[in-house]
Amino acid sequence: MLEMLSDPQSVAVIGASRDERKLGYGVLSNIIRYGYQGRVYPINPKADEILGLRCYPSILDVPDPVDLAVIVIPRKYVAASLEECGQKGVKGVIIITAGFREVGSEGMKMERKLIAIAQRYGMRLVGPNCLGIIDTVAKLNASFAAGMPYPGSIAFMSQSGALCTAVLDMSIGEGVGFSRFISLGNKADLNEIDFIETWRDDPHSRVIMAYLEGIADGTRFMRVGREVTKHKPIIAIKSGTTSAGSRAVSSHTGTLAGSERAYEAAFNQTGIIRANSIQDLFDYSIAFARQPPLSSNRIAIVTNAGGPGIMATDACERAGLQLASLERETLDALKEALPPEASILNPVDVLGDALPNRYGLALESVLKDANVGGVIAITAPQVMTNAVEIARVIGELSTKYDKPILGCFMGEPTVAAGVKVLNEYRVPNYPVPERAVAAMAAMMRYSQWLEVPPLEIEEFDFDVETIRRVFDQVRADGRLTIGDAEAREVMRACGIPVPASVVASSPDEAVAHAEKMGYPVVMKVASPDILHKSDIGGVKLNIGDATAVRDTFDLLVYRATRHMPDAQIWGCQIQQMVKGRHEVIIGMNCDPQFGPLVMFGLGGIYVEALRDVTFRVAPFSRREAEEMITEIRAYSLLRGVRGEPPADTAAIVDALLRVSQLVIEFPEIVEMDINPLIVHEAGQGSVGVDMRLVLS
Amino acid sequence: MLEMLSDPQSVAVIGASRDERKLGYGVLSNIIRYGYQGRVYPINPKADEILGLRCYPSILDVPDPVDLAVIVIPRKYVAASLEECGQKGVKGVIIITAGFREVGSEGMKMERKLIAIAQRYGMRLVGPNCLGIIDTVAKLNASFAAGMPYPGSIAFMSQSGALCTAVLDMSIGEGVGFSRFISLGNKADLNEIDFIETWRDDPHSRVIMAYLEGIADGTRFMRVGREVTKHKPIIAIKSGTTSAGSRAVSSHTGTLAGSERAYEAAFNQTGIIRANSIQDLFDYSIAFARQPPLSSNRIAIVTNAGGPGIMATDACERAGLQLASLERETLDALKEALPPEASILNPVDVLGDALPNRYGLALESVLKDANVGGVIAITAPQVMTNAVEIARVIGELSTKYDKPILGCFMGEPTVAAGVKVLNEYRVPNYPVPERAVAAMAAMMRYSQWLEVPPLEIEEFDFDVETIRRVFDQVRADGRLTIGDAEAREVMRACGIPVPASVVASSPDEAVAHAEKMGYPVVMKVASPDILHKSDIGGVKLNIGDATAVRDTFDLLVYRATRHMPDAQIWGCQIQQMVKGRHEVIIGMNCDPQFGPLVMFGLGGIYVEALRDVTFRVAPFSRREAEEMITEIRAYSLLRGVRGEPPADTAAIVDALLRVSQLVIEFPEIVEMDINPLIVHEAGQGSVGVDMRLVLS
Repeated sequence: MLEMLSDPQSVAVIGASRDERKLGYGVLSNIIRYGYQGRVYPINPKADEILGLRCYPSILDVPDPVDLAVIVIPRKYVAASLEECGQKGVKGVIIITAGFREVGSEGMKMERKLIAIAQRYGMRLVGPNCLGIIDTVAKLNASFAAGMPYPGSIAFMSQSGALCTAVLDMSIGEGVGFSRFISLGNKADLNEIDFIETWRDDPHSRVIMAYLEGIADGTRFMRVGREVTKHKPIIAIKSGTTSAGSRAVSSHTGTLAGSERAYEAAFNQTGIIRANSIQDLFDYSIAFARQPPLSSNRIAIVTNAGGPGIMATDACERAGLQLASLERETLDALKEALPPEASILNPVDVLGDALPNRYGLALESVLKDANVGGVIAITAPQVMTNAVEIARVIGELSTKYDKPILGCFMGEPTVAAGVKVLNEYRVPNYPVPERAVAAMAAMMRYSQWLEVPPLEIEEFDFDVETIRRVFDQVRADGRLTIGDAEAREVMRACGIPVPASVVASSPDEAVAHAEKMGYPVVMKVASPDILHKSDIGGVKLNIGDATAVRDTFDLLVYRATRHMPDAQIWGCQIQQMVKGRHEVIIGMNCDPQFGPLVMFGLGGIYVEALRDVTFRVAPFSRREAEEMITEIRAYSLLRGVRGEPPADTAAIVDALLRVSQLVIEFPEIVEMDINPLIVHEAGQGSVGVDMRLVLS
Repeated sequence: MLEMLSDPQSVAVIGASRDERKLGYGVLSNIIRYGYQGRVYPINPKADEILGLRCYPSILDVPDPVDLAVIVIPRKYVAASLEECGQKGVKGVIIITAGFREVGSEGMKMERKLIAIAQRYGMRLVGPNCLGIIDTVAKLNASFAAGMPYPGSIAFMSQSGALCTAVLDMSIGEGVGFSRFISLGNKADLNEIDFIETWRDDPHSRVIMAYLEGIADGTRFMRVGREVTKHKPIIAIKSGTTSAGSRAVSSHTGTLAGSERAYEAAFNQTGIIRANSIQDLFDYSIAFARQPPLSSNRIAIVTNAGGPGIMATDACERAGLQLASLERETLDALKEALPPEASILNPVDVLGDALPNRYGLALESVLKDANVGGVIAITAPQVMTNAVEIARVIGELSTKYDKPILGCFMGEPTVAAGVKVLNEYRVPNYPVPERAVAAMAAMMRYSQWLEVPPLEIEEFDFDVETIRRVFDQVRADGRLTIGDAEAREVMRACGIPVPASVVASSPDEAVAHAEKMGYPVVMKVASPDILHKSDIGGVKLNIGDATAVRDTFDLLVYRATRHMPDAQIWGCQIQQMVKGRHEVIIGMNCDPQFGPLVMFGLGGIYVEALRDVTFRVAPFSRREAEEMITEIRAYSLLRGVRGEPPADTAAIVDALLRVSQLVIEFPEIVEMDINPLIVHEAGQGSVGVDMRLVLS
């Protein structure tokens, strides 16, 4: 797929120029200079020849077929030129020209026109408003970037052209190589998801690295992301996530930036590893690109200096990496290989006077150890330190063992030659221990993700007719909000237990219902016109006998009438009084990018004051629902503190999954919450006491 | 102070060698090579001359006075040599030789001997087990480090010698300079606090930068730290803070690493800025060393690329920095200076084709803006970007305005020359926006610290005699734990309100007391022998009338007798039943490094399940006590949610300050908690219901 980009037989540059200050020159000369082997056609009506190549006035004049065209001409000519590309049968077009969606509504209109033309001819577009693309496999540099990346196994894409140039420059400085290098621009046609999907089976790409400001299609992103991350890691920056940042996004690319919480959930659910800076992006990507996968979360640290060893240990604990307990044989081998003052416990400190040989013996011992999944090899330059030879020892061992080794040669001039040797052996180097540990932790998260079974969405039997009937009724009434009895009907139809509840039209009827239900009961004024019943004193809890029921009936009806004389009042609702150990909340909100986003948290103050809640994009699996429960901070309360019995978390999981199914099956639900869902002890189930839904 | 280190007139190297592989050669040649101007005396009985200098068999043979001696001889000769230094009248000695405290008890014994000798002669020691010291002001490199740092205004010390060499190497690579550079080693005599104190008035040092694994004397550290940070910033790594890390510290230097919580509190209270890695340490230090202070938390971002601008904005929000709202005149100036597609709102995007002139106009506009405290100047290399000239423009403006400017030139080869120009202008550069923002945030925290008034400890009138009497009584009984009535007596003596409470020896007496107090009451079995009364069902709450009091009296006494037949039973305690909106806990624990560490949190599950607590080292000020209350996550509950009235936080502050005074005045208290302190609505006070103290 997308071979017109990664393996075109011929490329036309529309707007090729012999003026070195023009982008049309830059693109053409990049294509030629960096060794592209296909045919190249400069297109420019005002020239016969550019850079030694015959030039054509229009793409239609090119005698042979053209696979890929790069457009670098003023905005007003782009549409006509694209039309000609279509007529010519061009398969892919890179539009470098800017001035479209990113400049406002007029540009947006012109961009829509480009999309229409491309669709009509079945052409795929990159851009507009981009730097171009670079492919080190095809040796094609169809961009105006000032340089060519080294070949490598990282496929990169960026929604910011300036970031492309910065990343390219950094990669050249640090000797990091790329397979594919894509500037996405405005993503009029091809977007990040298309490339993720394409690179899934790309044998030249081991890692996908992305800088994103927004997502084109949340649902497809989830599906493709989930699938592709099982084949290769995706490391991504999503910027513009904070509220201040979002403002900047809007003024920059016009992309609607989704809320941080939704992205957090989406990245979590798709196994995409989030990077917080370009530095992290590089640090993580080179670890994946150059080293074998990490098979466990237990690592070893080998160091020639105590201080950095401690710092690495601190960082491991913060990152959730464990220091492996070394096996008996390893400890024996280390004891033999190292001087008595050395520390043979992990972190293994080979001491400052360690020669390469001693360093190597220690490193090999821990690599052999079955408890060790990966190693961080630290070298601080000291008097006796031969950084180059230590690097060679590390490099050689890295070729012998199928475990990741990340280097941490600290310092600059003194260790530079050693770092170069590490690079030759494809052992990534990090200048401080914390960065090596962060990269190892990213490898751990990816290994854990590979263990996650494929997404399996359970299907529950819903009483779909009832739900449909309630929704129709509500709509027929011209309402959008559903609460009370109607909402309980919906819950019951989804299989979520609700308290027994009936409407009584008189005090006598109320007493009869209450006696049947058993005291105590809850009473609420029953009126379709009064939404916030507790605000007017229209809800009473814990009513214990017949007299109280009668009194309350009269009181609530009186209050309702006084509050809203014209309200239709049906009487009072008599409801079973549910008491339980815990109250939780399950909510849903429609995210503009990802659709239904389901929230879970403990009720009341935990949600309001502590914001102790978690989110998942629906639909989600049982495993993900279980994760939601355990990842809130207050989870220990559900597990039971001070000898209390644990809560029925299985019942919460069940409710979460049913809500997930409900909001997917009925996309007209734009908002809902069950608050509270009262949760009993393990095995005793849960009851949804109150629910509110909003339809679109 | 410590002029013998920073400005010695003469230096002897005991163990000077002409064998290039020996440290004694390295030290001597470093002293000579890097331009030390004083007299240098190699000491070695086996040589007449080394490196062109006359050599003496013993320091006693040197004809002139010696200010500073460096000892690099085998461990067994060190003590005798130090003794000779004393006889010679040497003022300071650097002991590079290792094999002391860090290798166990025998080494510890030898180290103690060195301390005794030094004290006898009034000599100050650096080390043992260190790399030496370097002073760029005196041009003295009395170390075996492989290089000399650039001169600069950062004073650095490290408890790890290997880290010294790594930092030195990095600093040379990045062009960062130092005034003083100290390897602390085992800190037998001079420790981090001595150097902090010394550098307070050092005109050559603008910033103090430290790598620490432990603190010599917590109380002095607090006092000196608090004071010195008002004169210059201190940036420090404290490693070995996590539990795994602490293990590594113990095996490394034998320093007892204090608990993470205590260090967090101590750094917070002294205004020391914590760095989490060597990278942060450098990043923050150069900002302080090279730029003027940041006067507000509102900054501006100027960028030639949208993506990095968004990333910087995201990072600002995470770090608590605000993007300044630009003044009308600034916006007008920007509108005039920039093309229409540019973004004139902060972040100011001058666009990818910006020439140095446009960049400069935008930068100067925001620098002039009174709302802007500091600027982050981002440059991503793009086709038209002239990094060198943009750097020059930034540099020139940095000399004109007294606001910090941090550069962020992204990339490597393309921007390297520009970064060099920034360095010449002393504008720090960070390769990614997040690091520039983190450095700016450190500057913000420091400016905020400078606003904090000097520590003022309030003094309350305690009934010291009562406290003393209770403690004496407890000790006389051979007990260490104080609870119940005795503890309430202590609380009352400290001025912390307690509920009315009396011991009744009979049911009749109990009823009489309860009637006087008013129902409901709390009853507890009164026995000095039963500590955990509620465990045996010995506590009853909410007792509402005389019959219940009589029944409860008999029940509790029966249970106590059954539980512990030999216990002395005084009867029952009758206590006022205190009900309040909130229960908080105030606790104290003795930290091995910092002494009394006071804890605050909401009671019950907030402490147990959510660990939502905060700490301060006692004594602390009213401001610090107020901070404790606002910094727990559940603070919003105290402030009042859902229209509830706020809690009486002033009463909590009062209780915290009284506890602070109590544990300082009575250092024999090693542990205590008031749990719960029941807090009423604002203005209504608080009551300490239960208290427990443990004496040493």
